[in-house]
Order: sequence, then C-alpha cells, then structure tokens
Amino acid sequence: MQRTPLALFSRRHDLSFLKPMLEAADPALDIVCWPDPRCAEAEVAVGWEVPPGLYDQMPRLKLVHGIAAGVDNLIAGQDLHGAAVCRVVDPMLAEGMLQFVLWAVLHFHRRLDLALAQQSRREWKRPEQVPAARCRVGLMGLGEMGGRIASVLPTLGYTVNGWSRTARRLDRVQTWHGDAGLAPFLAASDVLVCLLPLTDATRGILDRRLYAQLPAGAALVHCGRGEHLVEQDLLDALAGGRLRGAVLDVFETEPLPSTHPFWATPGLVVTPHMATMAGFDVVTAQIADNVARWRDGRPLRHRVDLGRGY
Amino acid sequence: MQRTPLALFSRRHDLSFLKPMLEAADPALDIVCWPDPRCAEAEVAVGWEVPPGLYDQMPRLKLVHGIAAGVDNLIAGQDLHGAAVCRVVDPMLAEGMLQFVLWAVLHFHRRLDLALAQQSRREWKRPEQVPAARCRVGLMGLGEMGGRIASVLPTLGYTVNGWSRTARRLDRVQTWHGDAGLAPFLAASDVLVCLLPLTDATRGILDRRLYAQLPAGAALVHCGRGEHLVEQDLLDALAGGRLRGAVLDVFETEPLPSTHPFWATPGLVVTPHMATMAGFDVVTAQIADNVARWRDGRPLRHRVDLGRGY
Repeated sequence: MQRTPLALFSRRHDLSFLKPMLEAADPALDIVCWPDPRCAEAEVAVGWEVPPGLYDQMPRLKLVHGIAAGVDNLIAGQDLHGAAVCRVVDPMLAEGMLQFVLWAVLHFHRRLDLALAQQSRREWKRPEQVPAARCRVGLMGLGEMGGRIASVLPTLGYTVNGWSRTARRLDRVQTWHGDAGLAPFLAASDVLVCLLPLTDATRGILDRRLYAQLPAGAALVHCGRGEHLVEQDLLDALAGGRLRGAVLDVFETEPLPSTHPFWATPGLVVTPHMATMAGFDVVTAQIADNVARWRDGRPLRHRVDLGRGY
Repeated sequence: MQRTPLALFSRRHDLSFLKPMLEAADPALDIVCWPDPRCAEAEVAVGWEVPPGLYDQMPRLKLVHGIAAGVDNLIAGQDLHGAAVCRVVDPMLAEGMLQFVLWAVLHFHRRLDLALAQQSRREWKRPEQVPAARCRVGLMGLGEMGGRIASVLPTLGYTVNGWSRTARRLDRVQTWHGDAGLAPFLAASDVLVCLLPLTDATRGILDRRLYAQLPAGAALVHCGRGEHLVEQDLLDALAGGRLRGAVLDVFETEPLPSTHPFWATPGLVVTPHMATMAGFDVVTAQIADNVARWRDGRPLRHRVDLGRGY
C-alpha cells in the first residue's frame, strides 16, 4: 500500500493529539509533526497558523488542509506553490456559532448588558422591553454560519439584514452586497454581527468609518478575526457613545494580553475565541476524506478559492 | 348609555396612567383610582398587588382583572365575594419570556457565566463546547409561556423536559407531572427553568430538597415568583456547589433591597423582574373586551380557576 506523507503543523499550538486520530481515520497516512525535518517529504500539510515559509520547504506539497472554517492563517502571505487548500465545514460549527450569536443578540436586545452593570451597583431599574421586530440584526457574511443564523433569527421575530461580497438571496432577510451595499446595510443594523472571512478586502473593515455609519447606540458582535477590527477605533466609538457595547470573541493577539484595555472597558464583553469549534472527530474525518479524494483524483470538498480567500 | 364603574388599584404602583388608555378603549367606563373612596361603587377592579381587604369594601364587585399573566397578588388571602378573576394572556408576553429564558439557557449552556467571571480576572481560558443535545433543559410550568419555550428549544437542538401539575403532551419534549413526576424530572434537568404560577402548592417549591435532586452543577433560571424560592436554601446550594449558578428575575421583596446578599453572590445574575411585560395596549384592549363580555353576559376570556389559582 502506498503511504501518504502528511505533516501536522502549528506555529503556536501542539497538534500532536491529532496524529492518532488521523491514523485511525486513515491507516495509510504517514504522519510527522512540525518541526520534525521529515516534514519536507509531506504531500499533505494539516494545521493552524502556519510557520512562515513552511510550504517553501515542502517540494512535494499538493494539499494544505485547515482544521477550522477560516484559513486566513494558512494562506496569508504564503506561496502555496500550487497546492490546493481546504477548510473544515461542520454543521456543528454553524450550530455553535448560532448559539453564541443568539446569546449576544439577546444580550443587547433585552438589555442584559445594562442589567449586569446595574447588578454591580445594586441598582433595580427595569429596562424598556423592545419587540424583537424593532431590533434590526445585521449579519456581515452570509456563508455557512451567517446563513444558518439568518434562518433562525426571523423565527424569533427579529428584523434581519445581511451583507456579503456577492449578491445572496435569503428567505425573510433583506440583503445587500458589495461596496455599494455597505452604507445602507450599516444604517439598518442595531446589532451588527461580523462573521466575515479574513481577506485583504475585509482586513480592518471594522473601523471608525464603519462605526460612524451605524445607528447611534448600536452594538457589535465580532466573531470574525481579530484583524478585521481596528482596536483604537472601537475604543473611541465606545467612549463617544456611537456604540453602546460589543461582544468580542477574536483578537489580533490571542490569548488577549492581560494588560490589554479591552478587558476592563465598560460595555465590552471579552470571550476567549470560544464562539464555536468543530469536533475533532469531524475535523479528522473530513481531512481523511479529502486525502482519499486527492489520492483518487476525485474533486476535493470545501476547497478554498485562493483568489477570494475563503 | 349605562356606564360601568371601574376601580384601578395597586398597593405600591401608580397605575393612573392606565386610566386614559382604558377610557380610550371603552368610553363607557367610569374610572377612579384607589384610594379614591368612590372605589366602593366599582363593579370592575383592575390592578396589581391588591391592598388587603379592598374587595370587602366593594359590595357591587363582579370582575377582578389583572394586568399581567400571574394573579397571585390579586387573590392570595383575599375573599373575592364571588367575583370572577381574569388574567392577561398576550402572545408578546410569551415572546418576551422566550427571549429571556433563551438568553439564560445559552448563558449557562455555552458557559458565558464562566467567561464573564474570567474577564473580570483578565483570564483567557476556552470552556469546553458541549452540544445542545447534551444540555437538558427542564421547564417547570407548561402553560402559555412554558409551551412556547418548549416549542423553540428543540429546534435549537436542546434536550427538553417538562413538568406540570397535570399531564401535558408536547412534541419533542419528555413530560412528567404531579408529585410523582418531580424527582425523575429534576434528575434530568441540567438547566432548570421555573415558570410556575404561584399557588399554595408551589410556594417554596425551590428549596433544599429540590436542589438536592438536580444533577450536581445544575443551573437555575427563575422567572416565576419570589415566593417560590427559599432564599437561604439557594445560597447554601450555591456555596456547596450543588448549583453552579442561577439567573433570578423575581424576588420576595421587589425591588430587591440593596443590602440583600443576592446582589453580590458569585454565580448569581440578578435582573429587575424584566423577563417579560405585556404591552399596555394589549392589557387595556383585553380588559375592555372582558368588561364588554361581562356586560353582555358572554363568556370571559382568560378567566382564572380560583381552585387551582391560575
């Protein structure tokens, strides 16, 4: 039996726990972990946060496989040398994201942010109850995750708007797209939810120009990537009252350094990149399936378009 | 035109703002506000938290109408002298409760309680992600509100159990009822949600015996009435680790006194009886409709069974 050499890598995490899981899913895999020099033989590379220049040391590389939905940290600034790139698409990933975003939307819509702040002051004051229809949720990104969320929020009565790079049609959701669609979309977003992939076109998109186009007192739920967000602009928007709060799950530097101002900024909820995670059983099964497809010359699943970056 | 004398009352709140709204809904109402002595002429009494003995001073009283879903504070310990009692049933009331309970269930299921505590310590630690199916939500009370919540939680993947006084059948929900059903229901409730009406049978039901029957580390969401809950028993259950947290929206004394230990007990979220409130347009329309029905001898809507208390 022909064995497929596979390299597991991460600049920052120890992914060696995936080795026995991948071997169980496909005994024909011959797996080594970076920085083992045998990585140079790899035809398949699997990982998260690629060490710079790693692919340049793999002359036989044909397939780079992520272990999550986003692949920005596998491709940004890297020369893939023609290798295909795949990501993980797991229905449970969308469910986890739905749960997290639903919590955050309810948190702002029903003023639990205010209630928790009042509790710390031992203050009893009933917030106004606004019908869900009057809380307009704006979803930036209408892929697997945004699409699932867009299908549930209207059943709870929310007014849902969506924005994506290219035009999308969704039931019970008003959609906009492209640069021209951004301003009217933002103007109609009381709670803005960022689920965008990180690409050159979306890096730094959550900046002062964007905040200025939201309704006064809007809230932000950020589940994209840290690099979408211009940190000082967010702090300014909160201090100036343009935004009344934000739930941030992703950061430019993770873990968020303990000295970072976000931890203690009023109105900010900081969570540890916890919104959703694929089960590793699903991750390893999808990787093994794609390796078999590549070996057999069949089409790969969840292949990334390197031109657009997701 | 025969005018109907109506008294607006509350021991603690000023309900006079309802007078013009009720007059607009039915110009034939002749409305006075307690403690105006003309209340003695009232055939209809509308209010919240009845002053003790008020009904005894109303020899012509035929209808007592609440302004919310619960009527315990209108009937407990009172002689109704044969008057009918009605409550408000508003679909928006169930929607508000659904939103609040959904927030609280997600808060515990997705460990946002832990994340917020970690934020206060500037600590970055990703909690384990548990599939919704492994989070068993136990609904105590399967009326208008519990029924609505029971219809939504399974669509989000939750395992939902229900308990009520008398047997109920609900799609995708395992139900128990009565005293005999309480123990197995509690043993299967990772998040227990109290939506019960306050009656002699349910007063003090959230006590140490109940907490001892929950799975270790369960969480409580209390949206019933303050009198359901034995406060010291809850503090003991939290201190002993039997419960990992609770969201409390109702209290024996409201507003919760600023010296109360609940405000600063780790694991407790204290909210100001905000879970849901009927819109006053709906409240006044339902009262006007029931007054018209009573005048015409037609059946009243949402009439309370005084034997069971809801």
